Amino acid sequence: MSALATSRKPSATPQTGRDARLAARAGTFKGQTAGVAPGYVQGNLAILPANLAGDFLRFCQLNPKPCPLLAASAPGDFRLPTLADDLDIRTDLPRYRVFRNGKLVDEPTDIRAQWRGDLVAFVLGCSFSFEDALVEDGIELRHITCNATVPMYRTSIATAPAGPFHGPMVVSMRPMKPADAIRAIQITTRFPAVHGAPVHIGKPELIGIADLMKPDYGDPVPVNADEIPVFWACGVTPQSVVATVKPEFCITHYPGSMLVTDRRNSEFAIM
Amino acid sequence: MSALATSRKPSATPQTGRDARLAARAGTFKGQTAGVAPGYVQGNLAILPANLAGDFLRFCQLNPKPCPLLAASAPGDFRLPTLADDLDIRTDLPRYRVFRNGKLVDEPTDIRAQWRGDLVAFVLGCSFSFEDALVEDGIELRHITCNATVPMYRTSIATAPAGPFHGPMVVSMRPMKPADAIRAIQITTRFPAVHGAPVHIGKPELIGIADLMKPDYGDPVPVNADEIPVFWACGVTPQSVVATVKPEFCITHYPGSMLVTDRRNSEFAIM
Repeated sequence: MSALATSRKPSATPQTGRDARLAARAGTFKGQTAGVAPGYVQGNLAILPANLAGDFLRFCQLNPKPCPLLAASAPGDFRLPTLADDLDIRTDLPRYRVFRNGKLVDEPTDIRAQWRGDLVAFVLGCSFSFEDALVEDGIELRHITCNATVPMYRTSIATAPAGPFHGPMVVSMRPMKPADAIRAIQITTRFPAVHGAPVHIGKPELIGIADLMKPDYGDPVPVNADEIPVFWACGVTPQSVVATVKPEFCITHYPGSMLVTDRRNSEFAIM
Repeated sequence: MSALATSRKPSATPQTGRDARLAARAGTFKGQTAGVAPGYVQGNLAILPANLAGDFLRFCQLNPKPCPLLAASAPGDFRLPTLADDLDIRTDLPRYRVFRNGKLVDEPTDIRAQWRGDLVAFVLGCSFSFEDALVEDGIELRHITCNATVPMYRTSIATAPAGPFHGPMVVSMRPMKPADAIRAIQITTRFPAVHGAPVHIGKPELIGIADLMKPDYGDPVPVNADEIPVFWACGVTPQSVVATVKPEFCITHYPGSMLVTDRRNSEFAIM
């Protein structure tokens, strides 16, 4: 390898949804999408066989806060034109996870080989979109300050079941000063398509969380004496619910490697 | 007094703003306005000499949450046509309080005798308007359940001063389950003209309240273990601030006997 090649800077962070997808499609971008294409909506991916798709769709409609459905494909169709004209769900994420009977069997960067004519792709809104709006308003997000993953907890709040899909709601927690918590409720209320307003504030024990310092997913973050914990429904809920069902076949995004769309976060503000 | 007269039922509760004002003007209604003319905006009254009016107006504009100004008259003008066509601020409240140099000197039901050419009338929004929207949404208001006056507290939150007007913000407190608190923030955000969103939630000690059971005004109400206290800026703030200034002359509404206007609460929803 020449000196020129070794000194070459890594490719710049993609600045648009299309840049991110084309780089993922070309195999040059295989990493995390946090910070990629600022302002563009990112989504969680779940791909299920058509025989489970109807129940899962109904599950999302019954539980819009943890499962804000942005788009669902027709069976066998790998396009999602409402999210981006040229989107191919089989190639456009940096990395995937493939499960058979609930067991992780592969983590490919392309799923064209695994695609089937009965698969339905679901894209669900994610907290990146509302976090963008909170940060823009000057509200500190502790997990970002700590360079950590947001802490997430299984709660005693049950989701509304649909077919085989059922289980507890998972929430993410962001500690805030009370005035910021009030402002954060106002801001996230504007974004019902990406989890919307919090589901709980204060008193974690009321929703079955025994110790904030022991999240079920992500990293613990400090909660100061002048702060209260604010809890949002979390996109890990459908992942955890699908894992319980152990479907014969299922594909998701690799954690942190989301679909980046052509839609803007601001488009999803209802006012 | 004849048997007929003694057995006569008390006049029915006025059902519109105009009914309430005409009854007050006629001297047949001298009581509390809570529950009167459901759906119509009620307001706190402060009447000050013109030499203080500019500073007070600026104080209101600097502190819109505790001092949501609905209307201010021209000096000497006792009409407020934006609140009601036929309104005469000297006669249309059930009862007044007259202060000289900060001292309460009279509690008349009519202030035509005290009116002066340099007086300016200020009408400020009150929590009845947003409480209406909360009750309509099915949220329990504890002080109503307890048939008590909402508990109010002087806080460590300073108002922004204007001329001689300065002092601590007074807040009212309503205990709620967390999900109701989130919903109440959403609902009251729609009503910025009548105190708007809460100023604080949870942890009373952060705003200088040592004991929720010892309010500075109103009555204590129980806060259950599964509830958090929610605090709104309160219209007692301007009253307490004006009292500190001890103006040469001042008239207010008698506590609980407010101005009832022709405007509907729903008109003040911003969306």
